[in-house]
Amino acid sequence: MSQSHLPAVLGRIDAEFDASLARLFELLRIKSISADPAHAGDCKQAADHLAARLTELGFDAEVRPTDGHSAVVGKHKGNRGGRPHVLFYGHYDVQPADPLELWQRPPFEPAVATHADGRKIIVARGAQDDKGQLMTFVEACRAWMAEAGHLPLDVTVLIEGEEEIGSAHFGAFLKQHKKDLAADLVLVCDTSMWDPDTPAITTSLRGLVYDEVRITAANRDLHSGLFGGAAQNPIRVLTRILGALHDDDGRVTLPGFYDGVKDLPPDILAQWRALDLTPERFLGPIGLAEPAGEKGRLVIEQVFSRPTCDVNGIFGGYTGEGSKTVIPSQASAKVSFRLVEGQDPETVRKAFRAFVTARLPKDCSAEFIDHAGAPAISLDWGMAPLAAAKRALTDEWGREAVLIGSGGSIPIVADFKTTLGLDTLLVGFGLDDDNIHSPNEKYDLKSFHKGIRSWARILAALAEPTPG
Amino acid sequence: MSQSHLPAVLGRIDAEFDASLARLFELLRIKSISADPAHAGDCKQAADHLAARLTELGFDAEVRPTDGHSAVVGKHKGNRGGRPHVLFYGHYDVQPADPLELWQRPPFEPAVATHADGRKIIVARGAQDDKGQLMTFVEACRAWMAEAGHLPLDVTVLIEGEEEIGSAHFGAFLKQHKKDLAADLVLVCDTSMWDPDTPAITTSLRGLVYDEVRITAANRDLHSGLFGGAAQNPIRVLTRILGALHDDDGRVTLPGFYDGVKDLPPDILAQWRALDLTPERFLGPIGLAEPAGEKGRLVIEQVFSRPTCDVNGIFGGYTGEGSKTVIPSQASAKVSFRLVEGQDPETVRKAFRAFVTARLPKDCSAEFIDHAGAPAISLDWGMAPLAAAKRALTDEWGREAVLIGSGGSIPIVADFKTTLGLDTLLVGFGLDDDNIHSPNEKYDLKSFHKGIRSWARILAALAEPTPG
Repeated sequence: MSQSHLPAVLGRIDAEFDASLARLFELLRIKSISADPAHAGDCKQAADHLAARLTELGFDAEVRPTDGHSAVVGKHKGNRGGRPHVLFYGHYDVQPADPLELWQRPPFEPAVATHADGRKIIVARGAQDDKGQLMTFVEACRAWMAEAGHLPLDVTVLIEGEEEIGSAHFGAFLKQHKKDLAADLVLVCDTSMWDPDTPAITTSLRGLVYDEVRITAANRDLHSGLFGGAAQNPIRVLTRILGALHDDDGRVTLPGFYDGVKDLPPDILAQWRALDLTPERFLGPIGLAEPAGEKGRLVIEQVFSRPTCDVNGIFGGYTGEGSKTVIPSQASAKVSFRLVEGQDPETVRKAFRAFVTARLPKDCSAEFIDHAGAPAISLDWGMAPLAAAKRALTDEWGREAVLIGSGGSIPIVADFKTTLGLDTLLVGFGLDDDNIHSPNEKYDLKSFHKGIRSWARILAALAEPTPG
Repeated sequence: MSQSHLPAVLGRIDAEFDASLARLFELLRIKSISADPAHAGDCKQAADHLAARLTELGFDAEVRPTDGHSAVVGKHKGNRGGRPHVLFYGHYDVQPADPLELWQRPPFEPAVATHADGRKIIVARGAQDDKGQLMTFVEACRAWMAEAGHLPLDVTVLIEGEEEIGSAHFGAFLKQHKKDLAADLVLVCDTSMWDPDTPAITTSLRGLVYDEVRITAANRDLHSGLFGGAAQNPIRVLTRILGALHDDDGRVTLPGFYDGVKDLPPDILAQWRALDLTPERFLGPIGLAEPAGEKGRLVIEQVFSRPTCDVNGIFGGYTGEGSKTVIPSQASAKVSFRLVEGQDPETVRKAFRAFVTARLPKDCSAEFIDHAGAPAISLDWGMAPLAAAKRALTDEWGREAVLIGSGGSIPIVADFKTTLGLDTLLVGFGLDDDNIHSPNEKYDLKSFHKGIRSWARILAALAEPTPG
């Protein structure tokens, strides 16, 4: 039944695209910069605006307070009277627009422009992240409502206002409204396509363990002439330990680090291989040529599905201009591990601390600071909604949608899993050149238009999970 | 003949000690802080004062300009009409006295105080370094002149005013006055005793190579989620390289590093062993217990006669509070090597750079900055003036004077060698608890008194180099 409305819904999306664009522009004009207290009123205005638009569409929508900026919750009962019930997540807050002088036009006066290569683009702060992306879903709902009088399944829309400042109050909000936000699946529109022609669903996110270690040797800084040779140097100790964290094949040497880490299923590996993400393509733009990860792994595996270790910061001794002959008392480093499915953050953290401690000379002590720990997120490759969404995207874009991983971590997705017990499908239409968080942020007009059409199809497909 | 005057000279020193102390106090009251332009006039006053005092004694003395603070040169022809001719070096400038609130009395109002353990001490900025020390020599000359009418050998006194700011213009000054400063041997009074009862002559100084290395990987900082695993991390590269600079036995692993390095002569080693510088005694006060240098070497060897490598500073990535998931574009370190006799600074520098370069992954580049390079200084253990000075010190202190090394480098000593071709005997009466460069600097009254007597004896002994 859902599929029977779909052609008309898609036709309406095309016919009314200018109006969709105008509504996006209304939202883009609101300076909802969550990081700047001066824009707290604008954040409230964006929340009110979205609640009103959702109410217009037939959602039971309201602005709900948090201990920070408000969130918007809108609920709609579809005509199927039951499962699946999807929870859509987006955020209305945007990054600050500084430095303003680097923008080619005012960041909160959205316009359609023509990219150097001829593409039509929407230019504004938030054009992609996340106002443009979240409006693809809202406009898809609008077309469905207008054409069919209802959505093909139960939908709760949840839009927060603090994503750009770390979603500080979002975990508590989810816990507080846990029952009210019950659903079967989360949909998020805040990620990117594989390339401008190839849609993608992000099915895994790496986890993170972030630890800081400070090694102390002598009880004060020493002169390297008077003490050099006899006094232990904590930088020597630290570099020796950190320098042993990888072997010659790029593997992390922590005992047990790879326990539980699985290889990709052959079909996914074949699909990734076909994407042909060469070192040149991935590393060329940042001035590199040689993948630094585990030997024998594709670059795409190294960043999507393999765990890593990076020293994110190191500091000790004299680092100013010129020279100082000091043996410092302390040296420290910030070390993080990206985790994949099968790895437990606390096990990895303990292994790291044991690795350091076992290598300390008697005269040195180590202190550790726990900065973060989150497990990897990974969807079951065989889950039905994933297949349905993939089919819908493939139909819209005329090219098979790819299932990819993300090397980064998205804490809200972990929150959906731990608090609501829900898996998350990450589908987005961003492109690598969208300049999010930078001046001249843009969203391709095609991303916005086909994004709306994509969600219209996904809603239909999720409502009828069996291919047909 | 010289020795025949000595008992009378020593008696005069004892009888006129209060006057010697008063003259030292006059010098200590002059705020000759070379680092502070506001005290440039005080530096000039100190130079004028010393030139006037040397003239009084019968030296042909004058203040000579440099491109910075002036130097004082005083010359006296002894009664032997020839060799040996000694060049005495000291400096009249002092360190700033900050923080003033930590001084128990005003730093430029010298006084004799009683130390907690009952020792009488002279307290003032410069009491030891170097006004107190240089006045031991000047007062010894005064006693010789008063008693014998002449010095027992030709003496040139050279007192500079920029030692505490790196002797910036001293090398050029030596070159400019090279002919006029010709001598046979340099005497410096700016070092310490072995302990309060044991006089020492410093016969070797370690050299120094100080290099900075900066490793660059990507052309910008990267997000460790998006690129971690595939993009090379320069901190990983740097720690791996620096962590390989020492082996498990504490030896430096640079190829050829120990080429030309000799073991101590057995008699010197036996003497050093008898000094019983235990790890507890040397490392205990700084909170350490285990010597970190080459296994199988005495602590005293590790700091006096063995070459070392220390990382003096390291920096890369995010080092502020909290965490940032960055893979930095660059990481850098300051690395220094203490050298001993037989090592060539430029060979060591080249070996270090080759060591780094050979370990760079293809995607990384390294830049180097040369901060310093100076060879070690080492006296011939068998030279006659050394034996003479040792005998004189042993006679004065009633305990055999020890020949020690210094782990640090004293650039002026290298200048005396390279510019004037002269060896330097370093004899000083400082103690470890003198607080030089710190608040409450002091010089033991015994150091000042027996220091004057020691120089009186050394002048006599140098004039008659054959024991008897």
